[in-house]
Amino acid sequence: MKRALTGIRPSGDLHLGNLLGTIKPGLALGDTHQCFYFVADLHALTTMRNAKELRKFSYDVAAAWISLGLDPKKHTLWRQSDCPEVTELAWYLSCVTGYGFLEKAHAFKDAQSKDREVNHGVFAYPVLMAADILLYDPDVVPVGKDQKQHVEMTRDMAGSWNALFGETLKLPEVLIREEVMTIPGLDGQKMSKSYNNVIPVFAKEADLKKAVMSIVTDSTPVEAPKTMKGTLLGTFFDVCASKETKNDIEVKLKAGNFGWGHAKLALFEVLNEMLSPARKEYESLRSDEKKLEAILLEGRDKAKSVALNVLGRVREAAGFRPC
Amino acid sequence: MKRALTGIRPSGDLHLGNLLGTIKPGLALGDTHQCFYFVADLHALTTMRNAKELRKFSYDVAAAWISLGLDPKKHTLWRQSDCPEVTELAWYLSCVTGYGFLEKAHAFKDAQSKDREVNHGVFAYPVLMAADILLYDPDVVPVGKDQKQHVEMTRDMAGSWNALFGETLKLPEVLIREEVMTIPGLDGQKMSKSYNNVIPVFAKEADLKKAVMSIVTDSTPVEAPKTMKGTLLGTFFDVCASKETKNDIEVKLKAGNFGWGHAKLALFEVLNEMLSPARKEYESLRSDEKKLEAILLEGRDKAKSVALNVLGRVREAAGFRPC
Repeated sequence: MKRALTGIRPSGDLHLGNLLGTIKPGLALGDTHQCFYFVADLHALTTMRNAKELRKFSYDVAAAWISLGLDPKKHTLWRQSDCPEVTELAWYLSCVTGYGFLEKAHAFKDAQSKDREVNHGVFAYPVLMAADILLYDPDVVPVGKDQKQHVEMTRDMAGSWNALFGETLKLPEVLIREEVMTIPGLDGQKMSKSYNNVIPVFAKEADLKKAVMSIVTDSTPVEAPKTMKGTLLGTFFDVCASKETKNDIEVKLKAGNFGWGHAKLALFEVLNEMLSPARKEYESLRSDEKKLEAILLEGRDKAKSVALNVLGRVREAAGFRPC
Repeated sequence: MKRALTGIRPSGDLHLGNLLGTIKPGLALGDTHQCFYFVADLHALTTMRNAKELRKFSYDVAAAWISLGLDPKKHTLWRQSDCPEVTELAWYLSCVTGYGFLEKAHAFKDAQSKDREVNHGVFAYPVLMAADILLYDPDVVPVGKDQKQHVEMTRDMAGSWNALFGETLKLPEVLIREEVMTIPGLDGQKMSKSYNNVIPVFAKEADLKKAVMSIVTDSTPVEAPKTMKGTLLGTFFDVCASKETKNDIEVKLKAGNFGWGHAKLALFEVLNEMLSPARKEYESLRSDEKKLEAILLEGRDKAKSVALNVLGRVREAAGFRPC
């Protein structure tokens, strides 16, 4: 069975963008692939400076995967920092990766252009990401279109290493999720915690409703006939609702005397129905951190046995004592 | 007892520059300090691409320390790559170290100005070096004047971490070896393997002689009276010989009928006498890699127990599972 690998950064409440962009496609691979999914808490340290929050957010991500359907017995779910061997591989890759090559990374250029103070973790991020992947010998790495560059960089680094030290690292294939569109936020920008425009996945019903009701619409009066075509609300229906439900609402909108508020209420009901079962499971998991910890440590053991094997090959090739 | 820490990169035959610049001052601390000295093989990977050589060179450095007088039972001598926890600490430090801050490092600017292709390992080198130091809670780091910046950078990184995550890392003091002058090479440039101008410490007698006889001098004829004052050869006598020996040779040179060749022969004899006992011990150690390996693994165990303690503090402060 082929191995798929992906990670989610623990940066706070999981939102619909994470769910539809990463988790659902990740779960869809579960029948045909051996899934290696991790909580990217080492990456989170480039911005997080609060130990308590980082711990909490990491449990949140783990609980999300499980409550949404990832079977941690069948697959491998772990916290990145529990296999710190990844930082060792990152050093080895650093020694075969051009400085100029990293300057070309989108995320770095983006951060610099915004005049943000960039720390070395942000600059070195593609190297750690390459190590995240190469340490586990995956066959495929599912990513959105905007992350394609990182997998290409990973393949380049693996290629450089192999050219210098002999065949050691396995080059993974990128698996572009063409079908997944970028999920817009409540204001039409990309959904992101930093834009404060998210629909939270595991919020209480009242908070979910509040978020959905604040999707930006125009001010066409309730009486007037209208259409969802080309609107932000239309996109949300496309992404979350069945075609039947969407058509039904569209008919009502066109008939008039059915306002955006009514349509958003309908969207809330769709979402609430979709999220309720997982939310219950999530809350139960989240109330038992000991259980979550045990699951993550089991995942760590499985991940580590693969990692030590790959790292052993790399250390041997470079001239270090095998691990 | 205070702890001192230093590392030597395994880059081939040890030369007089290493001996007088790092090893002798390092040994001198042995009575008053607990010495933590390591073979910096992870750093070597920024340039080395040959596993067999790297292994060999690492044993060379370890055998050098011991044969020159470091007692590995009393002190701690290990191979950097045997405590890869140092790469993990380097990641944590990367997340609190400005990208611009690293751009200012001398070694990086130097490499860039020479238009050499710089890899990310060279750029990230000060972060790994800071981790090398901070992972072992040393009190002092003995360095030559030209390496002062790296210890200052280390203190800055530790300070940043402590400011963000609370007092975790101990700031070491720099111990400048004022008395040690930069050792010139056979051609008058700084002694360095990359300039191919070294006097090897553990070479066979004939090779040592050959090297010393190739120290660059002027072409004053044998008959003519001359002086060592202001000459390269004079510097070598300053660094290696007693004042009496130097005066004795100077008198002969001034008298005439005593050529540079005679003076160099005298220098060779001084060096040979100085190096012979250690050379014998070195050869015996070098012929038993199993014994060297056992010594290095004992050192690893001692180093690791300190490292895991420090790393545990750091992981706890950042929000990761304590190690």
